Amino acid sequence: MRLAVLVSGHGTNLRAIHRAIEAGSLPATLALVTADRAAPALDWAKGQGLATFFADARRVGMPRWERDVLAELDRQRVDAVALAGFLRILSPAFVDRFPGRVVNVHPSLLPAFPGLDAIGQAMRYGVRVTGVTVHLVDHGLDAGPIVLQEAVGIGPGESLEELETRVHAVEHRLLPEALRLLALGRLDVQGRIVHIAEG
Amino acid sequence: MRLAVLVSGHGTNLRAIHRAIEAGSLPATLALVTADRAAPALDWAKGQGLATFFADARRVGMPRWERDVLAELDRQRVDAVALAGFLRILSPAFVDRFPGRVVNVHPSLLPAFPGLDAIGQAMRYGVRVTGVTVHLVDHGLDAGPIVLQEAVGIGPGESLEELETRVHAVEHRLLPEALRLLALGRLDVQGRIVHIAEG
Repeated sequence: MRLAVLVSGHGTNLRAIHRAIEAGSLPATLALVTADRAAPALDWAKGQGLATFFADARRVGMPRWERDVLAELDRQRVDAVALAGFLRILSPAFVDRFPGRVVNVHPSLLPAFPGLDAIGQAMRYGVRVTGVTVHLVDHGLDAGPIVLQEAVGIGPGESLEELETRVHAVEHRLLPEALRLLALGRLDVQGRIVHIAEG
Repeated sequence: MRLAVLVSGHGTNLRAIHRAIEAGSLPATLALVTADRAAPALDWAKGQGLATFFADARRVGMPRWERDVLAELDRQRVDAVALAGFLRILSPAFVDRFPGRVVNVHPSLLPAFPGLDAIGQAMRYGVRVTGVTVHLVDHGLDAGPIVLQEAVGIGPGESLEELETRVHAVEHRLLPEALRLLALGRLDVQGRIVHIAEG
């Protein structure tokens, strides 16, 4: 599996993917790292000698950004895409270029708390349990078929920062694991339901 | 705490409340069991020698049903209400008679899957984790401040019936526990957030 990782920030999920590949648990090649804004993750990727591509989506506009990125994905023969803290919504046309092979990680138990600041949303709602979802991207916002989920309990008096740390730690485990299942061809999608074949 | 339990069906949550009272873990008196329809739970309650009140809400209409039930709650000096598999929506006027003292149990991790057939909704959505929520009832549907939640993972290939059994078992534990916290005066509600005082 030749994987592209799309980032917007520090790239801690990108690093988790990289670690899983280095450790041999994720049978994939990190073929490209790309960002929609000047992200620290890009500098880290360059420092690792990874192929990177960057255009500022706010400056060039999202249609041109997607066109340029798609050309680069073709050039690098990418066949799966991971959104790792990527804060923009991809167009249906982009998603349809990799059917069932665009994976997103979201810091809540979807369908609860879609969109931005999911951990803050959960805290303000007053839930006792939140978590992490890794799902295949379709044309909806944080709405595609779910590959993996894991619950994270919220302790009494826990701060937003403490909760964020624990949720992100689960993301860093779940996203590489979902990508591993995709790479091994173990995901069988039937409508909204993802069956995981025995390993 | 003089507790009324409102039911629509078999009353397995009612029985769990009754067991907790008998076992001494829930310091409350089961002052009244009432139903909106001819429910097996009512027969069971009568068999236990509990006070019951029944009017068919479909026949008399919900406004008259609520008026008659409120009169009975006054007569029995009820000061807290548990909705235990009660399938109707109470009016704001009814809820406001017991501010912060109407408790509902819902078979999902709210705000995901409000309304009827929450377990089936979760299965059809394809989540890997669902659960149980006990919350205080406000004027919204399954929307009030959350007292307790517990996650229930969905196993690969698990049937709806198997999942329902496991979710209901958690309900039977969580609802009496939340009522115990209410009875002990340990719930401190600040907006949407319920703080639980140390025991």
